[in-house]
Amino acid sequence: MHLTYHTDYSLRLLMYLSVHQEGLVSTTEVSSAYGISKNHLVRVAQTLARNGFVKIIPGRYGGIKLARTPKEISLGEVIRITEVDFHLVECFDKNQNVCPITPICSLKNFLQEAMDAFLKTLDGYTLMDLMTDETKNTFNQYVNFRQNK
Amino acid sequence: MHLTYHTDYSLRLLMYLSVHQEGLVSTTEVSSAYGISKNHLVRVAQTLARNGFVKIIPGRYGGIKLARTPKEISLGEVIRITEVDFHLVECFDKNQNVCPITPICSLKNFLQEAMDAFLKTLDGYTLMDLMTDETKNTFNQYVNFRQNK
Repeated sequence: MHLTYHTDYSLRLLMYLSVHQEGLVSTTEVSSAYGISKNHLVRVAQTLARNGFVKIIPGRYGGIKLARTPKEISLGEVIRITEVDFHLVECFDKNQNVCPITPICSLKNFLQEAMDAFLKTLDGYTLMDLMTDETKNTFNQYVNFRQNK
Repeated sequence: MHLTYHTDYSLRLLMYLSVHQEGLVSTTEVSSAYGISKNHLVRVAQTLARNGFVKIIPGRYGGIKLARTPKEISLGEVIRITEVDFHLVECFDKNQNVCPITPICSLKNFLQEAMDAFLKTLDGYTLMDLMTDETKNTFNQYVNFRQNK
């Protein structure tokens, strides 16, 4: 059971933007800080911009910044839009479902309840919870270390 | 966010065995009932047998049967052994993890808490909860329908 790289990179980008709110951030900078694909980060930034989490300022001196404060961005909300779907098993997908017992099977309901518990837990945390003063400092230290290598 | 086919088919096989406890069941029969791969079902049965959920009786008149009652098999317990891993994002995997902020990042803890809530919900349900008297009858009806096609 995994989340997609799109979700993983989205959360990392949002964390980076949370501790660099003083200005605009480039995907090159974030890509270098984490050692992850710049192309993927560009697509991630577009998804986050489309859904009102970040603003992308175009142009030579452009970049990305948070569109809301870290306290206003819950982890559950992010994951809901960055995951392709939550089709835990075949019968969640109306187009793919051929299981003959679907109409009378309760499995889907139990799995849905578990999925709701998963997301509800993450609704209780925001980007702010990830970025305490202590972690902010250490985050910067690690990122600087990586950038200076 | 998906579960693997191995989990999906494991739960389906266990449900089939729950409503056919009077005798042994063949993978050919289950494969035909659900319209799913027999080869995959054989591997699923081996996983379930290795972990004490089912017994495989070899030979011409052999087959598969539950090793415990449906009430003794929780959905959470099954999923814990049928999923390859629960590495929601990169930093869950010690061998793959290269994210520079892992030592000070709380994301993993929050995701782990969400994952625990997911599994705890499924720990609260057993195969028995999937197989009420009403659903048993309808299950058989659907399976017979498919087998007679």
